[in-house]
Amino acid sequence: MTSSEAGTRAATSAEREGRVLERIDAFRKRRPRLLDDVVTMAHGAGGKSSAALVDAVFVEAFRNPELEQLGDAAVLAPTAGERLAFSTDSYVVQPLMFPGGSIGHLAVHGTVNDLAVTGAKPRWLSAAFVIEEGFDIGRLRRIVEDMSESAAMAGVCIVTGDTKVVGNGAADGLYINTAGVGTIPEGRRLGPDNVRAGDRILVSGTIGEHGMAVMLARGELAIEADIESDTAPVNRLVDAMLTAAPSTRWMRDATRGGVGTVCNELAHTTGLAIVLDEECLPVQPQVLGACDMLGIDPLYVANEGKFVAVVAPDETDAALAALQSVTGGAQAAVIGEVMAEPEGIVALRTSFGGSRIVDMLVGDPLPRIC
Amino acid sequence: MTSSEAGTRAATSAEREGRVLERIDAFRKRRPRLLDDVVTMAHGAGGKSSAALVDAVFVEAFRNPELEQLGDAAVLAPTAGERLAFSTDSYVVQPLMFPGGSIGHLAVHGTVNDLAVTGAKPRWLSAAFVIEEGFDIGRLRRIVEDMSESAAMAGVCIVTGDTKVVGNGAADGLYINTAGVGTIPEGRRLGPDNVRAGDRILVSGTIGEHGMAVMLARGELAIEADIESDTAPVNRLVDAMLTAAPSTRWMRDATRGGVGTVCNELAHTTGLAIVLDEECLPVQPQVLGACDMLGIDPLYVANEGKFVAVVAPDETDAALAALQSVTGGAQAAVIGEVMAEPEGIVALRTSFGGSRIVDMLVGDPLPRIC
Repeated sequence: MTSSEAGTRAATSAEREGRVLERIDAFRKRRPRLLDDVVTMAHGAGGKSSAALVDAVFVEAFRNPELEQLGDAAVLAPTAGERLAFSTDSYVVQPLMFPGGSIGHLAVHGTVNDLAVTGAKPRWLSAAFVIEEGFDIGRLRRIVEDMSESAAMAGVCIVTGDTKVVGNGAADGLYINTAGVGTIPEGRRLGPDNVRAGDRILVSGTIGEHGMAVMLARGELAIEADIESDTAPVNRLVDAMLTAAPSTRWMRDATRGGVGTVCNELAHTTGLAIVLDEECLPVQPQVLGACDMLGIDPLYVANEGKFVAVVAPDETDAALAALQSVTGGAQAAVIGEVMAEPEGIVALRTSFGGSRIVDMLVGDPLPRIC
Repeated sequence: MTSSEAGTRAATSAEREGRVLERIDAFRKRRPRLLDDVVTMAHGAGGKSSAALVDAVFVEAFRNPELEQLGDAAVLAPTAGERLAFSTDSYVVQPLMFPGGSIGHLAVHGTVNDLAVTGAKPRWLSAAFVIEEGFDIGRLRRIVEDMSESAAMAGVCIVTGDTKVVGNGAADGLYINTAGVGTIPEGRRLGPDNVRAGDRILVSGTIGEHGMAVMLARGELAIEADIESDTAPVNRLVDAMLTAAPSTRWMRDATRGGVGTVCNELAHTTGLAIVLDEECLPVQPQVLGACDMLGIDPLYVANEGKFVAVVAPDETDAALAALQSVTGGAQAAVIGEVMAEPEGIVALRTSFGGSRIVDMLVGDPLPRIC
């Protein structure tokens, strides 16, 4: 038992809940200061600069309750019937093909996963292409086949689309946008306001493969390593886990900015602390080796088939067993826990017995990763 | 009465319906031959080449009943509750600002209008930005404010989004994708299979302003004319018309490729003929003048706040009066009628008493118009 856990028990449950809700409210009202005059690569990195741009420009202008949740997907309630989840992402990854996948796989998995971690059953996708004049049609076909394959694997249908063509040099080959709609089972309600000190942090598998695979595929680094992107749909993993651990608090897929950024967003939103155990982090040895050589922390490297979940302490074993029983979940692990203090901080207990702060990223070590 | 009308009456209603359904089926099964090896600007123009690319690459790979309707929006049926409409478009217009609007207005109106002409009440939008490094934040704010203004005017909420940044030169400033979800009132069923010989063709206002405004704003032509884009949401016009003319058969917004392309798609799908009256086409004199100088037919010029509707003969007056009573609909007009023959053809009765074929566009006279 740590001193912060003892501190938590001194407060009543209602006090704790009140404090968490206040924090969430404060976070949502907080307007990060946007100091830049022009857009920089850092605004696309998913870290502090991205948050500043999104909050100061987009949330400010579009202000509405659904958008202000800033979740992976908006939750919509038509006048009748089930609630819906609605999400979108544009994909600008370079190169378009990389070990383990392509922009086509990403474009489906990314949006499917955003819906899944909201607790929705992903159902329908749109697909919109901005294509550069001169793009090879055979290559386009292969990418579209990858999308089709991924959609079939995830059990979703691509039901509407759009194609635009721009001149030579104006789209770096191809950009794809997908938006997705899913249905949310009645009674399911995941969110950061459910998170309590004492909850456990799970990750659904090994981290850092996607980011490193794409970096190495660019061929700009003098490193060769056998690393494949983890791009995959997580909806079946999520289903298995939510069935086994119905009190699951919150989930998020660890894409741009990696597990470190996801944990930071949760800590900032809830005002709680997240303490991760370095020894528990599942990382493939070749990913760890490449990260070491490049001086990159695998906690910040993008994944495209992994999610972070906060589960109730008494459902942790069941959640882990459920994840490990599904294809793609064999390496799932409990990687840390939620504590009451230090407020809003993510810390890592290192293998050497020390601990260090895991802060939000400021720059973008890995641009155009998805 | 024309000879083709007389011919129509010789066939029974059931025969006619059978023939139309067969045609629709044949059209959907027809795979336009894609002969190109690389993507060209024509593939983005909304004409024959676009159709070939979409059918041969996307529909082929994503094959599912919703997508094969190839409507403005997919119609979705969650297990419970109302049916949904789901649509997406990417916006790559150049320049980003033009007389009468900006890419921000377009990005909202375009998707709102796709939902509206499906018969849906537009409800929620996503907004995804691909921004070039170095883009001015003040300019971004103005574009986002335009989106916000348009969303408020159309009565929709932007509920989810995404931001990606790409390097200098890789996005021509800014691309925006929006996807939209709308709810479809029970019992409403619009579609090309409802269209019958004898139905009337309406357009909701003057045509060709958007395309000409954008062309002139590029400053490459030695023409000056006081032409503003018509970019606007049409959902209130659609509501008024459907209330007054509940048997309305089918609608489509006349964006890329203009009214000429919309009519051709309908003629091809149904196997019926569409005969337009040149004298009835509402075109602003300055648009007509600019088109004449450039040798462009206003029938093919993009609109961003106009739709084509096919209405029942006995509801035509009511539909027209309803459109004309709503802001933005004063210039609505009956522009032609549906006939049984010549099959699949669009013809224009000219002001001089002759007639000519209005074919599908092959190239792209006006690239990057939306």
